[in-house]
Amino acid sequence: RVNGDRLWDSLMDMAKIGPGIAGGNNRQTLTDSDAEGRSLFKTWCDDAGLAMGIDQMGTMFATRPGTDPDALPVYVGSHLDTQPTGGKYDGVLGVLAALEVVRTMNDLGIKTKHPIVVTNWTNEEGARFAPAMLASGVFAGVHSLDFAYNRKDPEGNLFGDELKRIGWLGDEEVGARKMHAYFEYHIEQGPILEAEDKQIGVVTHCQGLWWLEFTLTGKEAHTGSTPMNMRVNAGLAMSRILEMVQGVAMGEQPGAVGGVGQMFFSPNSRNVLPGKVVFTVDIRSPDKAKLDRMRAKIEAEAPGICDALGVGCSVEAIGHFAPVTFDEKLVTAVRSAAERLGYTHMNLISGAGHDACWAAKVAPATMVMCPCVGGLSHNEAEEISKEWATAGADVLFHAVVETAEI
Amino acid sequence: RVNGDRLWDSLMDMAKIGPGIAGGNNRQTLTDSDAEGRSLFKTWCDDAGLAMGIDQMGTMFATRPGTDPDALPVYVGSHLDTQPTGGKYDGVLGVLAALEVVRTMNDLGIKTKHPIVVTNWTNEEGARFAPAMLASGVFAGVHSLDFAYNRKDPEGNLFGDELKRIGWLGDEEVGARKMHAYFEYHIEQGPILEAEDKQIGVVTHCQGLWWLEFTLTGKEAHTGSTPMNMRVNAGLAMSRILEMVQGVAMGEQPGAVGGVGQMFFSPNSRNVLPGKVVFTVDIRSPDKAKLDRMRAKIEAEAPGICDALGVGCSVEAIGHFAPVTFDEKLVTAVRSAAERLGYTHMNLISGAGHDACWAAKVAPATMVMCPCVGGLSHNEAEEISKEWATAGADVLFHAVVETAEI
Ligand SMILES: NC(=O)NCCC(=O)O
Ligand SMILES: NC(=O)NCCC(=O)O
Repeated sequence: RVNGDRLWDSLMDMAKIGPGIAGGNNRQTLTDSDAEGRSLFKTWCDDAGLAMGIDQMGTMFATRPGTDPDALPVYVGSHLDTQPTGGKYDGVLGVLAALEVVRTMNDLGIKTKHPIVVTNWTNEEGARFAPAMLASGVFAGVHSLDFAYNRKDPEGNLFGDELKRIGWLGDEEVGARKMHAYFEYHIEQGPILEAEDKQIGVVTHCQGLWWLEFTLTGKEAHTGSTPMNMRVNAGLAMSRILEMVQGVAMGEQPGAVGGVGQMFFSPNSRNVLPGKVVFTVDIRSPDKAKLDRMRAKIEAEAPGICDALGVGCSVEAIGHFAPVTFDEKLVTAVRSAAERLGYTHMNLISGAGHDACWAAKVAPATMVMCPCVGGLSHNEAEEISKEWATAGADVLFHAVVETAEI
Repeated sequence: RVNGDRLWDSLMDMAKIGPGIAGGNNRQTLTDSDAEGRSLFKTWCDDAGLAMGIDQMGTMFATRPGTDPDALPVYVGSHLDTQPTGGKYDGVLGVLAALEVVRTMNDLGIKTKHPIVVTNWTNEEGARFAPAMLASGVFAGVHSLDFAYNRKDPEGNLFGDELKRIGWLGDEEVGARKMHAYFEYHIEQGPILEAEDKQIGVVTHCQGLWWLEFTLTGKEAHTGSTPMNMRVNAGLAMSRILEMVQGVAMGEQPGAVGGVGQMFFSPNSRNVLPGKVVFTVDIRSPDKAKLDRMRAKIEAEAPGICDALGVGCSVEAIGHFAPVTFDEKLVTAVRSAAERLGYTHMNLISGAGHDACWAAKVAPATMVMCPCVGGLSHNEAEEISKEWATAGADVLFHAVVETAEI
């Protein structure tokens, strides 16, 4: 069994970096706080005797050697970056539990045939730079390095420049590493485990996603002196599209979600009808046909809504991953570990995207999940208990050691 | 007749300060550009032999003395501040045409019984600090100085601090000046004069306004892993309120408008359902009963829309003026000036708010308007012709000189 207190203390220490405004964290990718978090993590890896490698996406790979020089490593990790108003556990738990796995192996003097690599992927959240899971996406060959470097944050800063600026641009070619297996431990970010009173989620699938960025073009005009019939009201078109997206998602129940998190009005002045409204629709489903049908419906209906108001409408797919089926053997390893340890468990489909989804393209991969209070995540109030955290880390430890072969 | 070329040159010189991104201006109130614009204006006033006074709201009063020491001045002005993506004429035309009136009086050696005071009111636009027409509102006793100083821009800067910072905090008590009359010349910002092919708008009324700032409280949550039935979706509530506002305004046609120019999502991240959505509804009508009925309908319907989604809803009225009827004698002076000069004219209700609306509370006041292309304003593409500008300035000149008594 892992040392739950040590894991929890590390979680609390990391949470001091990039504090939020309501008890959570704002440690967005490639900010100064991200750099500080990485440094602390590196110190811990050094103390555990791990050798650090950094790739050209800034992803950190901390290796515990194996006994067989020819055996490919087992990768275990997640991400240390957070949402602007994120919780203390989303991603962080997965990285620090991976560290706890090797710390425990050190304590017990466990040697494995396969090396273990504790991994911190860059920009999983996609909050500052879309899309999410950017570094693992480049690693898996889904995006080019050039594409990644040219992602822009809302202030117009480039990903590539910011990576250099914070001092974590490495020299390893991205994706050159080969994996024997990839494990990721994460909080559920949804309500099912808590509702079903289970300690462990055995993650068999991950739902797919489309991020559709809408740019609506209206006519900037005075809110007072522009008669109703002369308005080209992009804000009104936006409101109708939001309602339409809601309808499309409700029409595909169960197993589908749709919503909007990001919205920009321009010039965003109280007495100016917006000339431009930009927002991102996030739709997801574990069923690829459903996911693509939702996209098709939304893209079919939006132009008509806009046309009726004279508003220009353009849509760009700025994020996508297809639903994922995780590796059967690794899923079984997780389930048997939970059994062996006496933890209650159930199969789960991940509602959120994870680096594991891209890793699954290039290696056998799976995930372990623990519950979170009220299913709440992407909220500073995100909460888990030390017991929940520890149970999942125990399962991770067992599944990883079994896969890495003693 | 005024010197139209000189007026136009001054307009073009002022437009060089705080250039926009598409041919217009971004010279928002109390920015460095505003300070620069004020300095240029002061130089011109100095050159015209005017004595400058500044009040504690930063409003600039440039006086041409009268012949009777006991006669109250005739005030003529508007504002030099612009929207973030504003035009070159909104407000600026009124200030520089007032200057052109005294320049022409100087040229012709005209002496008047009443002094003439060319006026530049601070923060007419209300883009950076709500409400609009802030300085004239304090002047008219509608707002306290303390209220004005504590207005915040989106970055949290206080009006009072910014006024000091740019160096235009004067020492005159606000509103201490008494006015014989107030004239304001402005572009129409609406489509009527152009459509009716008239050179001059004789402004008899101004429609009233409510700015209703909505704060919707949802629950920040993951867009992927939060099932549809667990969402507390403030963005969806917002979209329904926008549609409802549209319906309320359409239900009061003709003579009513309603729309939304400003919108903030928080935390504004693509994969986070917004915990907070803040936006401002702008409703207007020349009919006070209609205006207040619209407000009442909107405030009655919004809570139900929000309740149905579990979203919290609070509304604050952050800007208001009642419909205004301008002074009959001054309106007649404007109309007869247009007649005398042979300009085509018609009566007009101002669709936008103006400093004249507050001045009308403490003095006889009225306005002159000229057409603008396509009725477009609050847009960098705002356009007028030199001939239109000159015709209105001629009318202003005649009406002002008549009222100031030779
Ligand atoms: N786990 C997580 O929140 N990842 C961010 C990508 C997503 O939106 O699913
Ligand atoms: N004239 C003008 O655009 N004033 C700003 C106040 C308003 O929104 O009417």
